[in-house]
Amino acid sequence: MMAALVQSNPRTGDLGGNMEFLVAAVQRAAAADAELCLAPEMALCGPNAGDILLRTGFVEECREVLNAAALRLAEGRNPPLLLGAPVSNPVPTGKSLQSGAVLLHEGRVRVLGRKILLPSGGIHDEAGYFEPGVACGVLSLKGWRFCVTLGEDAWNEESAHIGRRLFSRDPVADFFSAGGADCLINLCARPYEQGRVAPHEQLLARLAERYRIPVLAVNMVGGNDSLVYYGGSLALDNLGRYNGRAEFFAEDLLLADLSGKRPATRLDPATGEAAPCPEEPERLRPEEELWRAVVLGLGDFVRKCGFGRALLGLSGGADSALVAALAAEALGPENVAALLMPASGFGEEGMEDALALARNLGVSSHVLPVSPLLDAFERLFGQNFAGGLSGFPGKNTLARIRGALLMAYANCFDAMLLATVDKSEAAVGRATLYGDLCGGIAPIGDLYKDQVRALCRHYNRKHPGAIPEAILRKTPSTEGALGRGDGDPLSSAVLDPLLRDILEGRENLQGLVRRGHDPAAARQAEILVRKSEFKRRQSPPALHLTARGFGGGMRIPVASV
Amino acid sequence: MMAALVQSNPRTGDLGGNMEFLVAAVQRAAAADAELCLAPEMALCGPNAGDILLRTGFVEECREVLNAAALRLAEGRNPPLLLGAPVSNPVPTGKSLQSGAVLLHEGRVRVLGRKILLPSGGIHDEAGYFEPGVACGVLSLKGWRFCVTLGEDAWNEESAHIGRRLFSRDPVADFFSAGGADCLINLCARPYEQGRVAPHEQLLARLAERYRIPVLAVNMVGGNDSLVYYGGSLALDNLGRYNGRAEFFAEDLLLADLSGKRPATRLDPATGEAAPCPEEPERLRPEEELWRAVVLGLGDFVRKCGFGRALLGLSGGADSALVAALAAEALGPENVAALLMPASGFGEEGMEDALALARNLGVSSHVLPVSPLLDAFERLFGQNFAGGLSGFPGKNTLARIRGALLMAYANCFDAMLLATVDKSEAAVGRATLYGDLCGGIAPIGDLYKDQVRALCRHYNRKHPGAIPEAILRKTPSTEGALGRGDGDPLSSAVLDPLLRDILEGRENLQGLVRRGHDPAAARQAEILVRKSEFKRRQSPPALHLTARGFGGGMRIPVASV
Repeated sequence: MMAALVQSNPRTGDLGGNMEFLVAAVQRAAAADAELCLAPEMALCGPNAGDILLRTGFVEECREVLNAAALRLAEGRNPPLLLGAPVSNPVPTGKSLQSGAVLLHEGRVRVLGRKILLPSGGIHDEAGYFEPGVACGVLSLKGWRFCVTLGEDAWNEESAHIGRRLFSRDPVADFFSAGGADCLINLCARPYEQGRVAPHEQLLARLAERYRIPVLAVNMVGGNDSLVYYGGSLALDNLGRYNGRAEFFAEDLLLADLSGKRPATRLDPATGEAAPCPEEPERLRPEEELWRAVVLGLGDFVRKCGFGRALLGLSGGADSALVAALAAEALGPENVAALLMPASGFGEEGMEDALALARNLGVSSHVLPVSPLLDAFERLFGQNFAGGLSGFPGKNTLARIRGALLMAYANCFDAMLLATVDKSEAAVGRATLYGDLCGGIAPIGDLYKDQVRALCRHYNRKHPGAIPEAILRKTPSTEGALGRGDGDPLSSAVLDPLLRDILEGRENLQGLVRRGHDPAAARQAEILVRKSEFKRRQSPPALHLTARGFGGGMRIPVASV
Repeated sequence: MMAALVQSNPRTGDLGGNMEFLVAAVQRAAAADAELCLAPEMALCGPNAGDILLRTGFVEECREVLNAAALRLAEGRNPPLLLGAPVSNPVPTGKSLQSGAVLLHEGRVRVLGRKILLPSGGIHDEAGYFEPGVACGVLSLKGWRFCVTLGEDAWNEESAHIGRRLFSRDPVADFFSAGGADCLINLCARPYEQGRVAPHEQLLARLAERYRIPVLAVNMVGGNDSLVYYGGSLALDNLGRYNGRAEFFAEDLLLADLSGKRPATRLDPATGEAAPCPEEPERLRPEEELWRAVVLGLGDFVRKCGFGRALLGLSGGADSALVAALAAEALGPENVAALLMPASGFGEEGMEDALALARNLGVSSHVLPVSPLLDAFERLFGQNFAGGLSGFPGKNTLARIRGALLMAYANCFDAMLLATVDKSEAAVGRATLYGDLCGGIAPIGDLYKDQVRALCRHYNRKHPGAIPEAILRKTPSTEGALGRGDGDPLSSAVLDPLLRDILEGRENLQGLVRRGHDPAAARQAEILVRKSEFKRRQSPPALHLTARGFGGGMRIPVASV
């Protein structure tokens, strides 16, 4: 039995385009003797389609596209295709949709399974749209009996959980205690989060071992709003050993022979050429994995929003340097513009470094001195209000003048503005709303300051000297617009560890002190995180890269105590 | 049996303050011979507490506050208090929290019930935080047996549903088929949505009739982020007839005698004075109901964010006029400032009307001519980029200059900026991101243009001439900054009905045409709604006033087809 894992990158809502890609992949797989094709959970409509799912007639549109594809695939010697798609709930109560595993075979469309364990909370909202199914699906094909699962349905094995199990049922255990199968299929759409790729592969390996069956897990790939699906679709043998894996962070097609007679191969999606999978599974270094996730998420977001170009403001600091390097790789340096907006006393000293960076990256740069604009604001304000625009209102106004110029450039040249805010700044509100928080997306909004520096150094290892050392030597507190006054107890050195314990650790004040943080700093950080929610609520979507990212992974009330 | 319904307005996360209010209410109710006090679902921590619920030790903090209150109430002849609060899930799998009904009685804290039907989707996210309970709670007190329910648990009676029932179980039916009770208690936190107050009272009346028991439904009141809890806690007799009702949109305390011997009374929360409920239930006119909802939601948001003052930009159009009138009522006119920012060719003609409005409302006004600022931007941009800032980039820049001035005022004078965008504009993106979309909250962001005019006229009926007729006579397309060019097929007259069918009706293109809309206009509106999501995602929270409000009631991907 030769299976083809179609690792697709769907556009949300583009039923026709997504299906077209799958049909072409099935035809290529057929030419390579595949007998069964698998595509990800929600491959038809894209993941997190939100209220698009609720549009009148949407599930009928899905059905029509599936029917048409089934008929097309039946004209020729194509293998069946099993993919994820929204389907109608046949029961008259409960939500009207379910998350289905749908088989296109011999010109017909058949719902083989309906997802049972629907995640909710954090970035997940499946429980808000779908009614849960009852049991895993079954596919019988050429003497093989497959257990068909969607996403979380296969991930609740008891031994897999160190902490709390969020679902009490294990649908796969139920399935095997009621009969069993020769192979486990898992269609999923699993977003990238740091440090969670390898443990998930271990979970799948334990499943294969426990039930002594090969496992085929096909994952989605590509950026969709805040989430980056990471691909890496996996074929394991019946002892849980690596058989083959599709590319991380790229469309791919993996061919795996379940009998184990032939080694797994990959078909290049561009050329169609077959290449054997490496004998040992490739491991990405954590920084390279993170780098690729951001490049894919940034590039896909810009492209899927219909843009070909991006711009950003270069301050001479590490954040904007990293975003510039990421954008140059994601979109091509010829499609990236950098605006430098010095003002007397604010960030003038970093301009040489910023210009050198732009030259090194090959992105275009423009220098717009903004002091005259700030003067004009100060004049008008001072004429009307005693006290004028001194202190932080003035700094904020400067940031907003820069934001307005960046947006004017974006409007004039049809480019998407990239926000350069990082997670440390977003957490405590060290950024100006409608100023440096302007942008279509915040590519590094889920990376702490220390991670920003680590990724810059990672980039410089591949491109020596690209990011000038002077930029990396600056401490964040000296980064003009973002620095705070003297005597700030939340210096960068204490802030990142504190924020990790507050955000990732969900610690309260007592817990923070118990972990050794200074009580005054802990208290201040905790208040700032809470009080800054109004800024984050109006910030561009941040790419979600950790289990507790600001791109949907956290929900904090704006007005709270 | 005399019951007291404590209609409280909690602050999210303020466990101590919220409990303090409840304890004081119980003591006042005791003085009025109440034998049982009821407080809303989640009265302890406030509704939609989000990730505050997940903080390490949070449920223990809740427990401590409950324990301390139970001990305080036991010192004295206080009746038991039944209230909603987060409680621990005793089962080791599933989410660790549940939404509980907790009894404070004789110095002890007892969990009587755990919410079963947890809403998800739209504004609801309870399924993301809580594990569902199994059955309704029971309270036995002085010979009475009460069925204790939380929110939706009591609202799934079969006859109550015209459309689809989202839950298949009816926990109240299960409870009564297994024994029954003498009275049904429903603790809830039900947000306001237009047209849904009376039908909900009818549902409660049907429950009373069906089971021949009195019903006590205590609702929360107050604004919490986008949601406005409307109060109107209700006591019905065992035939479903009105016995008494607490105030809409205000804190209140309702005393209801279940034996029906004494008429229901209300205790004024300020003076403590008792007043009998009217014999017939008061009905608010739809416009007055909506007006009060917005005034409460706006005022509570500003206050709960820690502000005492607000400001807004007055354009001479109906939207900003309405927001000014609402803010003056919610916060007092002395706490509201209006900025007028004329620019040559953009909105200068409305300034006299805007000044008259400010005078009529008693809010302070300041005129800041912004042409010099726009000129400075155009000069700098033109020096650097051929073509300069003509067309819509220039209009957007003007809006952003105004936004920066408003925010500078907000920063200097510690006031919250109110955004004046309405639902029609937000739907199709007829507003400038980081420009007129700046603000802490969008009070009328869930009202269509025709509703804005209707509320202005409603206000003028109470305050004749307050909003100058010239403002109301303008058609939206002549409202300077927001108007579009000539030949726009989406004039205001066709836009509102189209948007209602797209947003409230969830119609697709075919459905829109079937309902008589022009196909080109329908197609354009549908695309604009989709393409404007990036603006809404970064807009201030809109008060949620309809079942499909932009304040959390809709979830649309930014990048979709």
